[in-house]
Amino acid sequence: MKDYMQVQAKLNKLRLLMKEKHLDAYLVLSSDFHNSEYVGSYFKCREYLSGFTGSAGSVIVTQSEAGLWTDGRYFLQAEQELSGSGIVLYRMGEENVPKPEEYLKEHLEEGACLGVDGRTISISAYRKLEKKLSRKKISICTNLDLIGELWSDRPQMSCEPVWELDLCYAGKTRAQKLCEVRKELKKKGADGTVISSLEDIAWTLNIRGKDAACTPVVLSFLMISMEDAVWFVQRGAVSEKLIENLKSDGITVQNYQDVYVYLADKLQTESLYLDPEHTSWFLYENARKSSGTILEDPNVTMMLKAVKNAAEIENMRKAHVKDAAACIKFIYWLKKQMQRKAAAVSEEEKKACQITEISAAEKLEEFRQQQEHYLGASFDTIAGYAQHGAIVHYSASADTDAVLEPQNLILVDSGGHYLEGTTDITRTIALGPLTEKQKHHYTLVLKGNLRLAAAKFKYGCAGINLDYLAREAMWKEGLDYNHGTGHGVGYLLSVHEPPNSFRTLVTESRYECMKLEAGMVTSDEPGLYMTGEYGIRLENLILCREAEKNEYGKFMNFETLTLVPFEREAILVQELDECERKWLNEYHAMVFEKVSGCLEEEEKKWLSFVTAPL
Amino acid sequence: MKDYMQVQAKLNKLRLLMKEKHLDAYLVLSSDFHNSEYVGSYFKCREYLSGFTGSAGSVIVTQSEAGLWTDGRYFLQAEQELSGSGIVLYRMGEENVPKPEEYLKEHLEEGACLGVDGRTISISAYRKLEKKLSRKKISICTNLDLIGELWSDRPQMSCEPVWELDLCYAGKTRAQKLCEVRKELKKKGADGTVISSLEDIAWTLNIRGKDAACTPVVLSFLMISMEDAVWFVQRGAVSEKLIENLKSDGITVQNYQDVYVYLADKLQTESLYLDPEHTSWFLYENARKSSGTILEDPNVTMMLKAVKNAAEIENMRKAHVKDAAACIKFIYWLKKQMQRKAAAVSEEEKKACQITEISAAEKLEEFRQQQEHYLGASFDTIAGYAQHGAIVHYSASADTDAVLEPQNLILVDSGGHYLEGTTDITRTIALGPLTEKQKHHYTLVLKGNLRLAAAKFKYGCAGINLDYLAREAMWKEGLDYNHGTGHGVGYLLSVHEPPNSFRTLVTESRYECMKLEAGMVTSDEPGLYMTGEYGIRLENLILCREAEKNEYGKFMNFETLTLVPFEREAILVQELDECERKWLNEYHAMVFEKVSGCLEEEEKKWLSFVTAPL
Repeated sequence: MKDYMQVQAKLNKLRLLMKEKHLDAYLVLSSDFHNSEYVGSYFKCREYLSGFTGSAGSVIVTQSEAGLWTDGRYFLQAEQELSGSGIVLYRMGEENVPKPEEYLKEHLEEGACLGVDGRTISISAYRKLEKKLSRKKISICTNLDLIGELWSDRPQMSCEPVWELDLCYAGKTRAQKLCEVRKELKKKGADGTVISSLEDIAWTLNIRGKDAACTPVVLSFLMISMEDAVWFVQRGAVSEKLIENLKSDGITVQNYQDVYVYLADKLQTESLYLDPEHTSWFLYENARKSSGTILEDPNVTMMLKAVKNAAEIENMRKAHVKDAAACIKFIYWLKKQMQRKAAAVSEEEKKACQITEISAAEKLEEFRQQQEHYLGASFDTIAGYAQHGAIVHYSASADTDAVLEPQNLILVDSGGHYLEGTTDITRTIALGPLTEKQKHHYTLVLKGNLRLAAAKFKYGCAGINLDYLAREAMWKEGLDYNHGTGHGVGYLLSVHEPPNSFRTLVTESRYECMKLEAGMVTSDEPGLYMTGEYGIRLENLILCREAEKNEYGKFMNFETLTLVPFEREAILVQELDECERKWLNEYHAMVFEKVSGCLEEEEKKWLSFVTAPL
Repeated sequence: MKDYMQVQAKLNKLRLLMKEKHLDAYLVLSSDFHNSEYVGSYFKCREYLSGFTGSAGSVIVTQSEAGLWTDGRYFLQAEQELSGSGIVLYRMGEENVPKPEEYLKEHLEEGACLGVDGRTISISAYRKLEKKLSRKKISICTNLDLIGELWSDRPQMSCEPVWELDLCYAGKTRAQKLCEVRKELKKKGADGTVISSLEDIAWTLNIRGKDAACTPVVLSFLMISMEDAVWFVQRGAVSEKLIENLKSDGITVQNYQDVYVYLADKLQTESLYLDPEHTSWFLYENARKSSGTILEDPNVTMMLKAVKNAAEIENMRKAHVKDAAACIKFIYWLKKQMQRKAAAVSEEEKKACQITEISAAEKLEEFRQQQEHYLGASFDTIAGYAQHGAIVHYSASADTDAVLEPQNLILVDSGGHYLEGTTDITRTIALGPLTEKQKHHYTLVLKGNLRLAAAKFKYGCAGINLDYLAREAMWKEGLDYNHGTGHGVGYLLSVHEPPNSFRTLVTESRYECMKLEAGMVTSDEPGLYMTGEYGIRLENLILCREAEKNEYGKFMNFETLTLVPFEREAILVQELDECERKWLNEYHAMVFEKVSGCLEEEEKKWLSFVTAPL
């Protein structure tokens, strides 16, 4: 009851503020000022106002109504968290549910005014809104933060210490990177850029931090012109040593908040390059005041950082050996516990090997922490036992935390950051004997994973050309999974990194139609989800590389980076074709060869058994 | 020597005219006023001026220079035909070769004036040109036809009689089609359209003609508004009866040439819908004079005609039985002649069974002409023996016409128009014993063809998702073919019909990213080309249809329409996997079942042998 009252009280306060500012509606988004995937607690205005804790969702408040828009992942959670708040849930993607901009157009009167914090809305999102509303002459006021005004105990903005990534990990100096950026800008006809994307800034400057969950980035903006480079960052986060190091590379440091004034008053570029997806409308409006023309396209750093350099690739191979050791130790431990539980006679014995989804995830984290240079999880582990495995974005909470039994499957999707790079792996583990249906489904998912990993293709192909491979076997049987087959992965940066991906459909960004380049790392993660029963997903990271060049052109293939065996007991060998079986046996042999040295004797023995030829 | 003088003389005359009109350059395109694939002789200005007879190419003439731009298909031919003319050949796509617009920008001075017949340049092509040239303040004059002024013996514009396609073939009345068009226009927010594409007009009005090579269309424009429909067509081409029939469907007829004046003066639409690829700049400029806004997108009829209706589909199945009978008779005859030639002892005997590429193509045409409702070839037959088969767009001429010997392979790509629809088929036929390499290559192409035809996929997939299937087997061996895997096919219309296709790369139109819909007919034609040795291509038409609908969504697959056996002696059965072998055997059984009834006894016997299970 208390929470519900709080939300009501906040909405009322907000409505008073809105009246004061002559706003007919107020829009609260879940973004920070950088359109980041994970945002710090300072930025969680939407959560503060509505009580909804999911990662994606927008709230619209008018004097008479309040609504929350979120997507399929969060329908259940939002329903629970909004219950009694008076905020109406709009299930995005469902039939007859208006989009936020459609709702606004419908509900606001001609000439009305909408408020939104212009620092939290991207250029392209703002334009979409404006296009819709301008037809009804609705204006948008972007220079206010009403939630900030009523949020008395708002957390401080994160200001964690920044650290430098050694050249042996980064592979290129920041001077080299600045040079590359300037070369790309020149090619595009620009003489400057302001980068808002935190991952792109971290990549460019070879720095890392801790200002966002799961992504080791630093809250900041980076201006690069042909002569200058200015890093707008919280002074408290950077050491004198770092400031000096940056200075020697021609980069000066200014205060994080000063970027807007700098752009409006000081920046003198003829043609400024901005990424409309990652740059806020407020920044854009300031930049327009001093810049001649503005060129819009994805940050030039996007492609530069997506194509990993030789040092990064060599490091990532090492990170994957360590990560595999942790995962294999975990799987071995989990299976042994389940065997014990199955054999236990007394309740006490059973309790001694009691494991839940959450404690399993913690154990896995423990194994990762034992690895050298491990820095933390690259995203919140998904550990879904039995029917929870069928919920694609499941996250165990105290309420749902299931006790594992020596039967059925558990889906574990996890990843880590190491100095040597970022990992992301999903394995679905048999905790006891499986049914033939489970084995058949596991084998279908495995076939999809192998077929994509074994692809050989002409240079020029994009993810959209190859997605079919991961789905073919299940499509033949009228089965499918309702998510992309793969996403790009950063180097000690975001575990979801554009532009590379494997998808069936063309999205608005059209990244899935962009060529796969040698050096790109992408996940390969088909799945199958049996609602109320179990879920299966198998995910490896695969590195794109050149395979062959001849008179017909250049051909590419993939190197599999992830080194953890598949579930032997779940594979129906007779359903694999010769190529698939051969690929699998070679993969398992490689796993043993590369990882066995990092294991204890009994783990090694087990690995030797589960990687023996099938 | 004579031709060369003629070209020089024409260029000189043109240059005088250019001076008169104050033009610094003149651009001659190969299009008619409808951006058709095949144009009538009246429109062949570029050929008249330059002597180059290829289907694609543009000429630019300045006071000091003349150049022809064409693509890879025509490099050899253009070189020969331009030899001595003084016209420089620009090989498009080769390194350091400027595009026509780049050449113009480079060679013309600031403020210069370019002339082009605005009726022969599409809206989008004009814009591309303008964008490039405006930076140098070069103007474009579009209301003149200088070639027309100097072409004294220009052929009359084709004015062949128009005929109506019966409802039993069209499947929908023109009243129904007009209703569908208007519904689509409304959806797009338009209250009228002018269709320039001849195929789209023929489809909408259920009329056919003979004004272009290989495509049974009628030179005309069609205006459709919410109340009116006006068909601009040469009066001499339409009978009184037809005019009456049209009238009863609310369509009035006006003169072909009057379309421009009508658009400029009479048309009163608020929002006119035009296809920027098929509408000329000149038409657009006239339409702008009387219309409020202009909406640009592919003709709404494109999708309507691409999705074949039930009657069209049923008819196309019938057309393919007839076409298969002709092709099978041809293959049988050809093989028998070659056996005779191999067995012949005297020169006289050999001569008696002498066949060349051209005479073989004529024989095939003869077999097609024996079929009921056959109306003519849907494109010029490609019959390439041995090394000629490796030239993808080979067209035999008196100079190149090779004599067929009882050895090696002949590639025959041909198609026909029937009242029941249009066909397009390629078979590669063994004229004698084959090498293992030839068989291996044939089997690779066959695998590609079968795999694509056997695809089952989620609704939403486009051609770009499936292209890989046709190439996978050869890509694995580092082989490839340098053309698309498939194109859409019209119903008694163009044999190349957008938007459906199978391609690896995204093109400017992005048609290959458009969903495949049930009812679309597409070719499936992988190939392999061994320069100097032989070429292999295997082409069937496949119909997209719904396969299954369940909780995972809608799944699609293909029905193979083409019914001609593959080359039994060229298939290495051990290289096919079980699915492929099964598919092939079922296909061959279907071929025998459906076509054997149309054959003579000895042909039938042969067909029974070559379609027996492998």
